[in-house]
Amino acid sequence: MKENSTLYPDSVDILEAASRIDAFINHTPVMTSHYIDGISDAHIFFKCENFQKVGAFKARGATNAILTLDADQQAFGVATHSSGNHAQALSWAASRVNIPSYIVMPSNSSRVKVDAVKGYGGQITFCKPTLKAREDTLKKILKETGATEIHSYNHPRIIAGQATAALELIKEVNDLDIIMAPVGGGGLLSGTALATHYFLPVAEVIGVEPEQANDAFLSFKSKHFVPSRDPKTIADGLRTSLGTLTYPIILDHVHAIVTVSEENIVKAMRTIWERMKIIIEPSSAVPFAALLENNSRFAGKRIGLIISGGNVDLDNLPWINL
Amino acid sequence: MKENSTLYPDSVDILEAASRIDAFINHTPVMTSHYIDGISDAHIFFKCENFQKVGAFKARGATNAILTLDADQQAFGVATHSSGNHAQALSWAASRVNIPSYIVMPSNSSRVKVDAVKGYGGQITFCKPTLKAREDTLKKILKETGATEIHSYNHPRIIAGQATAALELIKEVNDLDIIMAPVGGGGLLSGTALATHYFLPVAEVIGVEPEQANDAFLSFKSKHFVPSRDPKTIADGLRTSLGTLTYPIILDHVHAIVTVSEENIVKAMRTIWERMKIIIEPSSAVPFAALLENNSRFAGKRIGLIISGGNVDLDNLPWINL
Repeated sequence: MKENSTLYPDSVDILEAASRIDAFINHTPVMTSHYIDGISDAHIFFKCENFQKVGAFKARGATNAILTLDADQQAFGVATHSSGNHAQALSWAASRVNIPSYIVMPSNSSRVKVDAVKGYGGQITFCKPTLKAREDTLKKILKETGATEIHSYNHPRIIAGQATAALELIKEVNDLDIIMAPVGGGGLLSGTALATHYFLPVAEVIGVEPEQANDAFLSFKSKHFVPSRDPKTIADGLRTSLGTLTYPIILDHVHAIVTVSEENIVKAMRTIWERMKIIIEPSSAVPFAALLENNSRFAGKRIGLIISGGNVDLDNLPWINL
Repeated sequence: MKENSTLYPDSVDILEAASRIDAFINHTPVMTSHYIDGISDAHIFFKCENFQKVGAFKARGATNAILTLDADQQAFGVATHSSGNHAQALSWAASRVNIPSYIVMPSNSSRVKVDAVKGYGGQITFCKPTLKAREDTLKKILKETGATEIHSYNHPRIIAGQATAALELIKEVNDLDIIMAPVGGGGLLSGTALATHYFLPVAEVIGVEPEQANDAFLSFKSKHFVPSRDPKTIADGLRTSLGTLTYPIILDHVHAIVTVSEENIVKAMRTIWERMKIIIEPSSAVPFAALLENNSRFAGKRIGLIISGGNVDLDNLPWINL
């Protein structure tokens, strides 16, 4: 996989991304809780990207990717396929610089997400809910519009943008022993791993994944790419496969990937809601679930934990249907 | 009512309360939201007491009341009757200085709240869910234990403590035109009104109350005390009557009391959850509901709004049962 390493964002790419997106994004707060520290027997610093623009870290990468296009590219707009936070982030970031955005969304996308993309001025094309239909429809849109594709994670500018969350965390909190992030397509985890490698190399980076969507865990362990196959997990942000760029970065710079049960994801999510009074989405609860499951491994450590987002359907909370 | 005005906390009482409780409480963040400002056509600064110790502003008053007892009084402990946040706040504050707390709770108190009081070491006595039973049981406990009663709102040290939330808000945000708080027993509103009177006298203070628990609105308008009679409102923190101390302070220093519908309380609560990603209790949503109902009155104003707390039963969210 080493052939891709020239595409890895370097430390300057990440620092430049941070200053490029500075006026557009929120510097999100780092929160702590005595109660949470007590039950997890560690010192946990939550980097709260649920308070980020569009409610998720994705605003960072999308903004960085758009701002690095040249004026001609920008004029034709940007396009992607996404049913989730990237769709909102890309249409939001495009609207901030007044360029068009074309979003391919599967026909079964939630109304809340469709409305959000429309609200940001994204031009939506619906397609069948399969990866093939999404890719085919996007190809057609790209041809028709001349827009630039901005992939949701497998893109060096996206990764450099997502890395700025860990960069801010490292600047604010000294002496972290471990930095944890959830892993789906790997945009957040690869960015976090690179930022940690460049700016706090003594810290370990741990990715966390649902047991029921453990393709990154298997790919990491076996060193052979294992795709995600329609996994069933409540952590809807973590159902995708690693990318050809995110996977080698993770192999090179992540220290461990661990998995957690669905039950503990829900328990972790609810504990954070109840005790910290913040709304986080299921994917964001995945790293804290690992702390609850492996108390002794993390005892006494100072742990930075990236809360990826807070976009939840408030009509469908997991503990109410249990 | 003027005979009570010698009991009003003065500016020194509030400043002393702030420094006295400083090491015990959280300096809670002030949050803003572009989206919320857009729909309310105002600039709103949310003082987030949902992030306070025990999840509510009540930690301020309880700490101030306990720390101002002399050593002999402290040795015998403190007592109150409460089914809500004050019960948690008093038992928590007592535990911080290692003194006993005796909490009379109605037998129909929620399990979550009973467990929280127990968790802080409060010694609970259950009674029938009537005001008379609560008062009679408390009298008995006071006699048996020699503890000092700390009323949940009708107490100058409690009011001075609650006033420190508005004091922090005023210190952090310049040029507020209006400061809003919900009103139940009036501890938070009277403290907010006094802090504003002393430290930002150009600002107006507006109390907000559910239409279905409008005793403070009627008392304020008629200048004759109207008691609360078992009101039905989702805002469970706002069901109590004003006190003999809080009522005259409110008459003297609050500029208006407005009421809001149950429907708009739920709508306001949900909007804050969805857009700000913070968990607030129904009582905390009441002032924002007034902004949604009276857009034109507040247009263009800089408004400080006290979010009173975030203690919610996550199994019973109001929009799910609608």
